[in-house]
Amino acid sequence: MSPSGLAQASGQALPAFLLCSALLVIKMYAVAVITGQVRLRKKAFANPEDAQRHGGPQYCRSDPDVERCLRAHRNDMETIYPFLFLGLVYSFLGPRPLVAWAHFLVFFLGRVVHTVAYLGKLPAPTRSVAYTLAQLPCVSMALQVIWEAVRHL
Amino acid sequence: MSPSGLAQASGQALPAFLLCSALLVIKMYAVAVITGQVRLRKKAFANPEDAQRHGGPQYCRSDPDVERCLRAHRNDMETIYPFLFLGLVYSFLGPRPLVAWAHFLVFFLGRVVHTVAYLGKLPAPTRSVAYTLAQLPCVSMALQVIWEAVRHL
Amino acid sequence: MSPSGLAQASGQALPAFLLCSALLVIKMYAVAVITGQVRLRKKAFANPEDAQRHGGPQYCRSDPDVERCLRAHRNDMETIYPFLFLGLVYSFLGPRPLVAWAHFLVFFLGRVVHTVAYLGKLPAPTRSVAYTLAQLPCVSMALQVIWEAVRHL
Repeated sequence: MSPSGLAQASGQALPAFLLCSALLVIKMYAVAVITGQVRLRKKAFANPEDAQRHGGPQYCRSDPDVERCLRAHRNDMETIYPFLFLGLVYSFLGPRPLVAWAHFLVFFLGRVVHTVAYLGKLPAPTRSVAYTLAQLPCVSMALQVIWEAVRHL
Repeated sequence: MSPSGLAQASGQALPAFLLCSALLVIKMYAVAVITGQVRLRKKAFANPEDAQRHGGPQYCRSDPDVERCLRAHRNDMETIYPFLFLGLVYSFLGPRPLVAWAHFLVFFLGRVVHTVAYLGKLPAPTRSVAYTLAQLPCVSMALQVIWEAVRHL
Repeated sequence: MSPSGLAQASGQALPAFLLCSALLVIKMYAVAVITGQVRLRKKAFANPEDAQRHGGPQYCRSDPDVERCLRAHRNDMETIYPFLFLGLVYSFLGPRPLVAWAHFLVFFLGRVVHTVAYLGKLPAPTRSVAYTLAQLPCVSMALQVIWEAVRHL
């Protein structure tokens, strides 16, 4: 993955994985920023010292929209973090590029739709379907990692 | 970790690490599936749009068993994600294979017992002991990574 | 990152990254230990089986100080885990050592100040400023990873 290493990887799985994963990390940072904006707009803070700074202790309170953002962010942590690990290892297993790109693209699109459906309060089961679709390539990569690992024990 | 790279790693730490870590990720996915099943069985949903789809807005509510699943999953995120990082780096430090396998096995078994104890509501301190045992190899690997890093600064 | 690999990396970005990241993982483990100590001191447990072991079912209850620890730990998971991934990939992109060290040091110090401000209940906006400062090198590394990935697609 040095400059020359990445150059050798052109047209292979690694650059596509790094693109999808870094974009999804940025997407998670965006959810964090949105959470902060919703806290300020709804005046609902988790800490007394934050409430004190923004109007008074009565604003240390929960809010359904803030909690929704927190759930979306938590679901990202439950799904995107394992992808960062599985996708990196999988990219070094020498997968066929088109197959690898399909794995990464399904996960990437599934997670973007998941966030839009969660924060946009889209009717069920949009969010659940996006979640499930995005998990499929992760399970596939995990099984391939297990298979390769067992072969080389 | 290309096919040839993994082949060179046969009998060394990396395949054992990849096996344990991918199995633990699958284990985390299983906790997520169980959480969903408990939500459906107890009719306790976090989002109004999910409750609406499964009987009505009164089912947007919390439930002790759902919260237990969420705590188990959160504890996995607090412990297994650092292992994915530490174990990967540690595997490349050239540890003695038997020592490395002991690290991975203690963590793997500790985390499986932790999940069983949490979801099965086993009496204390089963869960805490499993948690503590599983943290020991992680602290050991973190210290070894720090030691190697400092030597090469 | 084998012993010889790390030796080749002397004076470069990788050892500094590994030092900062392993220390931050230890820091997260410390927050978990503190959470457990606060639970014992305030007698506030999340699980009935833990409360039963420590005095009775009335101690299965929430506590503001415990929740503060949990929020600090969660914020670590939202920020430090992406750093473990981005920093590792970034270290292999061949960054100028001084620039790389500046990225890692700002993140490291920002996260240490964040934890101290959170657990020490320092007045706002100390914690938020530390959080924001620590995110800057992460966004910078994510953009550089995206840039390199796109160039090699």
